[in-house]
Amino acid sequence: MDANILFEQIKKKQSVLCVGLDTDLEKVPQHLLLEEDPIFAFNKAIIDATHHVTVAYKPNTAFYEAYGIKGWQSLKKTINYLNDNHPDIFTIADAKRGDIGNTSSRYAKAFFEDLGFDSVTTAPYMGKDSIEPFLAFEGKFTIMLALTSNPGAFDFQTQKVGAAELYKKVLETSKSWENSERLMYVVGATKAEYLAEIRQIIPKAFLLVPGVGAQGGSMDDVFKYGATETAGLLINSSRGIIYASAEKDFAEAAAAEAEKLQRQMAVHLKQLN
Amino acid sequence: MDANILFEQIKKKQSVLCVGLDTDLEKVPQHLLLEEDPIFAFNKAIIDATHHVTVAYKPNTAFYEAYGIKGWQSLKKTINYLNDNHPDIFTIADAKRGDIGNTSSRYAKAFFEDLGFDSVTTAPYMGKDSIEPFLAFEGKFTIMLALTSNPGAFDFQTQKVGAAELYKKVLETSKSWENSERLMYVVGATKAEYLAEIRQIIPKAFLLVPGVGAQGGSMDDVFKYGATETAGLLINSSRGIIYASAEKDFAEAAAAEAEKLQRQMAVHLKQLN
Repeated sequence: MDANILFEQIKKKQSVLCVGLDTDLEKVPQHLLLEEDPIFAFNKAIIDATHHVTVAYKPNTAFYEAYGIKGWQSLKKTINYLNDNHPDIFTIADAKRGDIGNTSSRYAKAFFEDLGFDSVTTAPYMGKDSIEPFLAFEGKFTIMLALTSNPGAFDFQTQKVGAAELYKKVLETSKSWENSERLMYVVGATKAEYLAEIRQIIPKAFLLVPGVGAQGGSMDDVFKYGATETAGLLINSSRGIIYASAEKDFAEAAAAEAEKLQRQMAVHLKQLN
Repeated sequence: MDANILFEQIKKKQSVLCVGLDTDLEKVPQHLLLEEDPIFAFNKAIIDATHHVTVAYKPNTAFYEAYGIKGWQSLKKTINYLNDNHPDIFTIADAKRGDIGNTSSRYAKAFFEDLGFDSVTTAPYMGKDSIEPFLAFEGKFTIMLALTSNPGAFDFQTQKVGAAELYKKVLETSKSWENSERLMYVVGATKAEYLAEIRQIIPKAFLLVPGVGAQGGSMDDVFKYGATETAGLLINSSRGIIYASAEKDFAEAAAAEAEKLQRQMAVHLKQLN
């Protein structure tokens, strides 16, 4: 996917909403368990109810792998459904992969070619030759962990490496990698005050921002410190939307939550052109 | 699996050999492509030919995911074959996973419960709450990346964080995590001279060591600086063994390479009791 398509979606929908499809059979409404593929049935209903205000969908692969081959089939059906019905919506395989060169190429092939996602999340610990194989794919994006929203982010990411924190070293170093214009970054909303400094290092790259809402991040701060002239943000909500209700009205409840977030986003996106 | 079973295997086979099952349909012998499941047929032949000198098998998940659902099925068949026929051989899902807490639990469930591996590799970038969910599984091991064998290891892992390098900070910090006795670590053989210092931080933990042979690491140095009184090492070879021949004699050739490595290992393991 071309980055312009994403920007057009953002302008059209006045939204930077990414819906996380972290689908858990213990949390989906009971009546769906009678379906042949309850995970896909749930995802389809959520997509149908929220796509008008959503610019990206992000299944986290852990939730699918936990169900083995059946889970992988549900993931495949979900991405096929998105590509067939909503080709302009950006898709993210939240997989946090990374390995030595030829092995990372395999992961890239898995998510970009076999499954057909527009992007995949990666972990930077193994450095340049673990990420560049992903960046070699034209029309695809690689979303690298920088500063995550969990407590463990303080164990290593915020430790000082020389004068600056590790996550800043990761951001700075990655700019020199081949095809780095295909990089996006994960930056948690729980650390929105860090965004001003992050934008000094990567002024234009898109940021995937988890942690608004349930984890305590402020959407206003994310826009204030992180927005660019093409928005430059994808703000993720997973459980807050998809589990808004555990009853038969789950899709309507998800739509209402998604629309509520979209209205908050629209206030900040009005000036885009 | 109990760590004693692994130690018994090491003593019995006079080997710390881990065979990496990085199975690639472009590299397996042509005649296997006629099989219903060529990946599993290849793995089964390699296991049958090498298990007498092997204490661990390590499929890298990237090679299976690249073939989508079919690949996942081949992985499942491979681990089932190992658990059914060689329950005393240690199994490693080389997956390099890691995510926020409840999501890491899902990955742990996928590899430990659904697939039935004894261990899984993880990446440390997201810190404590991304690894502890793996460590919660009794009788299972978590093998965390510390110092990898690829060039990108120098991008971040060897950068100084305060007085010591990041990988040392990772090792030191991880010792305080709950159930840290279930941790093993990846340390590349290409950096064997680092092993003496690593053993000062983690004197007893098992190390999974890639990079001997093809990547230039010295087995003698790995034993010299890294061995403990229970060996404390799993030395991996992937391509050097499984692609020793691309002809019909591939399994015999793999056996010969595995036996050659085992004989080198036996010299260093004689004194174990």
